[in-house]
Amino acid sequence: MASQDSGAGLVTVVPGAPFDLSAIDPDADGGLDKGAAKLALAAQRDRIRTLQERLYAERSRSLLVVFQAIDTGGKDGTIRAVFEGVNPQGCEVTSFKVPSQAERDHDFLWRYHARTPARGIVGVFNRSHYEDVLAVRVKNLVPEAVWRPRYGLINDFERMLTEEGTTILKFFLHISKAEQKERLEARIAEPKKHWKFDPADLVERQAWDVYQEAFTEALGRCSTPHAPWHVVPANRKWFRNLVVARTIAETIEAMDPRFPKAASGIAGMTVPD
Amino acid sequence: MASQDSGAGLVTVVPGAPFDLSAIDPDADGGLDKGAAKLALAAQRDRIRTLQERLYAERSRSLLVVFQAIDTGGKDGTIRAVFEGVNPQGCEVTSFKVPSQAERDHDFLWRYHARTPARGIVGVFNRSHYEDVLAVRVKNLVPEAVWRPRYGLINDFERMLTEEGTTILKFFLHISKAEQKERLEARIAEPKKHWKFDPADLVERQAWDVYQEAFTEALGRCSTPHAPWHVVPANRKWFRNLVVARTIAETIEAMDPRFPKAASGIAGMTVPD
Repeated sequence: MASQDSGAGLVTVVPGAPFDLSAIDPDADGGLDKGAAKLALAAQRDRIRTLQERLYAERSRSLLVVFQAIDTGGKDGTIRAVFEGVNPQGCEVTSFKVPSQAERDHDFLWRYHARTPARGIVGVFNRSHYEDVLAVRVKNLVPEAVWRPRYGLINDFERMLTEEGTTILKFFLHISKAEQKERLEARIAEPKKHWKFDPADLVERQAWDVYQEAFTEALGRCSTPHAPWHVVPANRKWFRNLVVARTIAETIEAMDPRFPKAASGIAGMTVPD
Repeated sequence: MASQDSGAGLVTVVPGAPFDLSAIDPDADGGLDKGAAKLALAAQRDRIRTLQERLYAERSRSLLVVFQAIDTGGKDGTIRAVFEGVNPQGCEVTSFKVPSQAERDHDFLWRYHARTPARGIVGVFNRSHYEDVLAVRVKNLVPEAVWRPRYGLINDFERMLTEEGTTILKFFLHISKAEQKERLEARIAEPKKHWKFDPADLVERQAWDVYQEAFTEALGRCSTPHAPWHVVPANRKWFRNLVVARTIAETIEAMDPRFPKAASGIAGMTVPD
């Protein structure tokens, strides 16, 4: 299988090689237990908070974190678990819903481009431009002649972003069909969760295999050297959260953001009364 | 003085009455000590997190929190202290800087309106449309014939927002001139803080009195029944953070957001394998 375990459970899709999503175990837990993982998550969150402050102060580069998953895959929960505690002044989350008429009147990348993070900012996409080769494909919203070229257009767009100073992290939260069943049942059983449940989710579930196929192709074709896809085993929420948090922390650490140099002439200035 | 102490240090500007900013003590601490205030802040942050989740789920109303202050007044620090810990998916912070050419080519409210919070969202403005009757006035960027009518235009704009479902909270962080001196000196003395220091701040400081006059008029004219101004004694950061956090928590609690009612017909649904 042309993907590599980049340590403790995260699977990075190898650019340019055939890719088999079904070979990745959504139950993987890296041999950790829940208690240890929760402690480790708290440490990673602190690390992210500190690093993000440096990124914000440096104000020359940005980080874009993309989350994709099937319904109930855990996008909302991951974002909360990983980013609660980060200064929201430096962190922008955009949840992409059904596009408006004005958005549909533009090219498919238009609404995503408008929400990419400014220098110094961590941008989080809850769903993303990948919807246009995922849901849009599965639901036949546009013909194949339209969506197929988008893999290349997405790669070009992401290369442009990275060359202009945005590091891109793409996470696919990978759950099993049985796990989705449990999560949907939990939403049905608990009236307080009904607002998160849409009966249309059951129709979507019937398209499970078609979605897996669409995910496989999108991850395979759009895992590039500048913006690889990472598959996160996501049946266990505590493991998923830790893997995502650690990868984000390591990525910002590798970017090595620095507080701007002191401008000359400031030291020694006096402030009048 | 036509302002009322709405409890434990926060001073609310009475709509329609004369207002005297200089009569408010920036050193006030509500008789609290720092340790107790920090513990109380943690409790208020938890409260905000829980309430914000309900606001987000309800998705029918929004909250806009506006921060204004003189340079070094503590806008950034307050936002971090109060909102770290809130799910950033439901919280959008916008820091308004010098307007772009495109922004200046529109009416003054255009760029702020574009960033008002959607239903379910807590929007935070770090600086706001008030800059257009504050810095813009003090620096003579437009003639009085242009900025003076803006008080009324701002009141109309805010009334429209509130009538359409946005609750507005406006905080003026009130520090003394001596406190600003200390904070500027701290930035000069500490190379790690130089990136936050702009020598132009010293020029701005010379206009202290003119700024106080502009603040006084803006707060007096734009404290309305639908969107009153709150003055926060802000020389003591720990007191300022607590006052702001508690007021936000109380405001969302009074909005009483509810999880959406369960749609009929969901209970008892089964999920196929």
